Amino acid sequence: MIRLRLSLELDYLVLSPTCDFVFNIHAAHTSRQTVREEALTLDPCQRAEVQLDPVHGSRFMRLHAAAGPLKVAYQATVDIRHHMEDPARIGEVPVSRLPVHVLPYVYPSRYCQSDRLLRLAFAEFGHLPPGYARVQAIRDWVHRRVAFQSSSTDSTTSALDTLVERVGVCRDFAHLMIALCRAMNIPARFATGIDYGADPALGPTDFHAYVEVYLGDRWYIFDPSGTAIPMGFVRFGTGRDAADAAFATIFGGVQSPPLPPRLRIEALTGEPDLALPVHCTQALSTDDGPPDRR
Amino acid sequence: MIRLRLSLELDYLVLSPTCDFVFNIHAAHTSRQTVREEALTLDPCQRAEVQLDPVHGSRFMRLHAAAGPLKVAYQATVDIRHHMEDPARIGEVPVSRLPVHVLPYVYPSRYCQSDRLLRLAFAEFGHLPPGYARVQAIRDWVHRRVAFQSSSTDSTTSALDTLVERVGVCRDFAHLMIALCRAMNIPARFATGIDYGADPALGPTDFHAYVEVYLGDRWYIFDPSGTAIPMGFVRFGTGRDAADAAFATIFGGVQSPPLPPRLRIEALTGEPDLALPVHCTQALSTDDGPPDRR
Amino acid sequence: MIRLRLSLELDYLVLSPTCDFVFNIHAAHTSRQTVREEALTLDPCQRAEVQLDPVHGSRFMRLHAAAGPLKVAYQATVDIRHHMEDPARIGEVPVSRLPVHVLPYVYPSRYCQSDRLLRLAFAEFGHLPPGYARVQAIRDWVHRRVAFQSSSTDSTTSALDTLVERVGVCRDFAHLMIALCRAMNIPARFATGIDYGADPALGPTDFHAYVEVYLGDRWYIFDPSGTAIPMGFVRFGTGRDAADAAFATIFGGVQSPPLPPRLRIEALTGEPDLALPVHCTQALSTDDGPPDRR
Amino acid sequence: MIRLRLSLELDYLVLSPTCDFVFNIHAAHTSRQTVREEALTLDPCQRAEVQLDPVHGSRFMRLHAAAGPLKVAYQATVDIRHHMEDPARIGEVPVSRLPVHVLPYVYPSRYCQSDRLLRLAFAEFGHLPPGYARVQAIRDWVHRRVAFQSSSTDSTTSALDTLVERVGVCRDFAHLMIALCRAMNIPARFATGIDYGADPALGPTDFHAYVEVYLGDRWYIFDPSGTAIPMGFVRFGTGRDAADAAFATIFGGVQSPPLPPRLRIEALTGEPDLALPVHCTQALSTDDGPPDRR
Repeated sequence: MIRLRLSLELDYLVLSPTCDFVFNIHAAHTSRQTVREEALTLDPCQRAEVQLDPVHGSRFMRLHAAAGPLKVAYQATVDIRHHMEDPARIGEVPVSRLPVHVLPYVYPSRYCQSDRLLRLAFAEFGHLPPGYARVQAIRDWVHRRVAFQSSSTDSTTSALDTLVERVGVCRDFAHLMIALCRAMNIPARFATGIDYGADPALGPTDFHAYVEVYLGDRWYIFDPSGTAIPMGFVRFGTGRDAADAAFATIFGGVQSPPLPPRLRIEALTGEPDLALPVHCTQALSTDDGPPDRR
Repeated sequence: MIRLRLSLELDYLVLSPTCDFVFNIHAAHTSRQTVREEALTLDPCQRAEVQLDPVHGSRFMRLHAAAGPLKVAYQATVDIRHHMEDPARIGEVPVSRLPVHVLPYVYPSRYCQSDRLLRLAFAEFGHLPPGYARVQAIRDWVHRRVAFQSSSTDSTTSALDTLVERVGVCRDFAHLMIALCRAMNIPARFATGIDYGADPALGPTDFHAYVEVYLGDRWYIFDPSGTAIPMGFVRFGTGRDAADAAFATIFGGVQSPPLPPRLRIEALTGEPDLALPVHCTQALSTDDGPPDRR
Repeated sequence: MIRLRLSLELDYLVLSPTCDFVFNIHAAHTSRQTVREEALTLDPCQRAEVQLDPVHGSRFMRLHAAAGPLKVAYQATVDIRHHMEDPARIGEVPVSRLPVHVLPYVYPSRYCQSDRLLRLAFAEFGHLPPGYARVQAIRDWVHRRVAFQSSSTDSTTSALDTLVERVGVCRDFAHLMIALCRAMNIPARFATGIDYGADPALGPTDFHAYVEVYLGDRWYIFDPSGTAIPMGFVRFGTGRDAADAAFATIFGGVQSPPLPPRLRIEALTGEPDLALPVHCTQALSTDDGPPDRR
Repeated sequence: MIRLRLSLELDYLVLSPTCDFVFNIHAAHTSRQTVREEALTLDPCQRAEVQLDPVHGSRFMRLHAAAGPLKVAYQATVDIRHHMEDPARIGEVPVSRLPVHVLPYVYPSRYCQSDRLLRLAFAEFGHLPPGYARVQAIRDWVHRRVAFQSSSTDSTTSALDTLVERVGVCRDFAHLMIALCRAMNIPARFATGIDYGADPALGPTDFHAYVEVYLGDRWYIFDPSGTAIPMGFVRFGTGRDAADAAFATIFGGVQSPPLPPRLRIEALTGEPDLALPVHCTQALSTDDGPPDRR
């Protein structure tokens, strides 16, 4: 089992009279990811309601803030018991047998215009045998072709841009991989967390975006930017792409934060069961699917 | 009450060894739209499973077809008891009070890149008082600026293309109106049906795409292309945009159908309760929301 | 020497009261391409002025037509004495030594957005030794990745679209190759002619678009679509891309022609000097550069 | 007569072994713009060749720089005798009568995709009587709809982006106005200079981009961003758009300059003939056309 302790602090300066925020910074509730303890601090103080999406396990916090500074701090200790599987035993699922709640993830979305990539995907990956290894090949294809460069893209950058310009941050790697999977009729979704294990040379600990692909009977984790250690990813949210699964969506006027987000994550050991996250060749999942479908 | 009898026939020629279809051609089940009777014919004959999306009421039929011709015929008689409301009494809902299941519809999607239209929308509609009338103003803005022209666009055309090129079909009008609503933080979704009441000069009866906007406590119907009579719309499906809510999504090789779709729709009268659909100034809705939220 | 006899007939139906046309259907005048005889017929009859672009040798004919049918017929016999060179002896020219009149062809243009392809081009071709062979590698890269399919694209399709969608007609192959060359700082331009030697299975004889790249001291011919025999290309025009070098640019309302263009081209032999155009491995050019720079 | 003294200093740090620059920072030579004196300083010292484009009067300086710092300083005193005309007397020129050297400026280009704006332009401006006043209406339309915001766009931003996003810098205003003019078949080109008379609140003196439109028998100046005083514009270059007419085009690896460009421009008076540039309602041109066409 993996136990992670994480904390994050976010600062905003609201300029408009009022401003609505939708945060997705609480650790998700899944059958394999359990929150041992967590704490939230808001300054100025207000009551925050956290809503659970029963299908995906994501937890949304909406705030209605007045003009002025807003500070959000969250910390949690989270246990993850990964489902681990031999990649050779994991197959793709034909569209005709996909669960209904998975179907939306084969369709194109704002940042993953898979409908325009059918020929390219088929030419590059159509000859490979279906299964986990083919998805890994898509992941590697993206990883090799795109260069990681901080601040090289912005909130309008889509998978097509990344395919053309060959540069981006973790979010862009994720969008391109998702688009290519969907172009092959393989359901793929966008997931967010913290970049556990990232090379400090890339900058301070940051939010992370990665990919979950539906194979066999569940969602498996892939990390196309290759900047961090997937076994250490605490999942916050999932969605079609970054349009759905931003850690913060802001409706109103907000100044660029005076301070960047400050994040920390560390793996806890010291108890018999607890292991450090490491790179591994096994397939990893933190999700057995929606409760009513298990 | 409105009673409509509709029928549709679709022809495909599957070229690949097998092909998966997801059809959304069954009349949706909502608290205000009831299917009195319906019949489906598949040729070659096969067992078709129709799945209900419990949140939206849409019904999906997946088929796994072998190479060769495929013919799908559906007919139904549907009763609609519209919720009708005085537009002046219908307000917008602030983001902080939107139901969780409505929130996804303020985010950008494949064909409705609302994130890029914030300034334009605010400049054009920001000065109008919030409410149904402002949404009607958005609808009218789109209707006046875009010209209806058959076959002028294709499956990659998005709201931004329509904003620039000022031409399209009903689907394009819908995408642009949706994108503008979302840019104003007003939830809007894509809906499909049949173009009841359309001018025969525009061609034979066809599928129709229109818009539903969440105002007050429910989804209201808007028809930005203005080609048909909203009171006669039998809803098949709803979604973020055409990526979600196509009447047919095809995974495999299919030849352009040898015959175009053949659709018919007529309003039935002759019983005391039954009225003909007409253009009206009242706000219309066919949906009281998901069952567990009523 | 190659001698070609070509003819073309174009039909238009002008709908607006008047309409301006700029045609570029006359065989260009270059130091190596000579028009032996030519004839033009306009119906209705009008005086047509043909203007020579002294830098590029292209010849433009502007017509001002009234509403109604317009028929343009042109035929010519053209001699081409190709400059032929061993590819191994042809180098690239550093930007610092490019002639001033060539410089515009390293900049991006409407359909060739080379500014967005710098990383991709450098990753794919940066390791190859500079020279003709590297340009041939770019040509082959495009040829292998893009599928030729009639009517798959339209007048707004650009190099980026073709890179993503991997399908197009000769014009699209040309745009993508041009964009990749420019991204490597290699001047490249769009050229038009007739598809001499094209496989009749692709359809009737048609206009053709290909590429000229500035290497050594002149413009060499490349044919990325690979559908025809470059030695048989009679050049009409050149430009930055299809925006400059369309065979017809129309300012006014014109109905899609009742008849498609009818083109013919044949190589003449029977005199001692005359050879049939064949595929060859030597580099070909029909242009020694502008008169005052020879 | 207007007399302006300008100076500019540019700093670069070349990272690649060598790097080619094409500068367009010398005051253009036109029949109405005369350089009284000028001086160029390069550090490290090198011989710089300045080439004159005989058609447009632009002057290009190519440098081949080694790795390390490069400093370019230029200063000049320039006299401008404007052609001034009553707008009411200036008409549009039908395509059939445009000089051949003007024709390229009705075609779309990299940043001015006029081919996609035909319907929009005709809907907005088609009802206005042709002439200078219609072009002024296009200029005002752009000026009213787009917000000036420093650093809001980048080198890939095109007229379509600006039309959608409604924000930009002077270059973006110029691209959108050019695209709309060309969509109306009115030749328009991109011009560069220094923002004489700009509000210091917008930042230090900077390069400026504006528009020249071909009306009557010459190119007239328009300033859609409205940030400066057109009568004080010393022209450096013109082109189809920013792809052609950048003040510096760099082929190689260069670090973002350690220092921003430092520009100064002032109007000289004190002699009987000399006037201060002022906003005026008359049409202004600094160009009588190419020498051989006067």
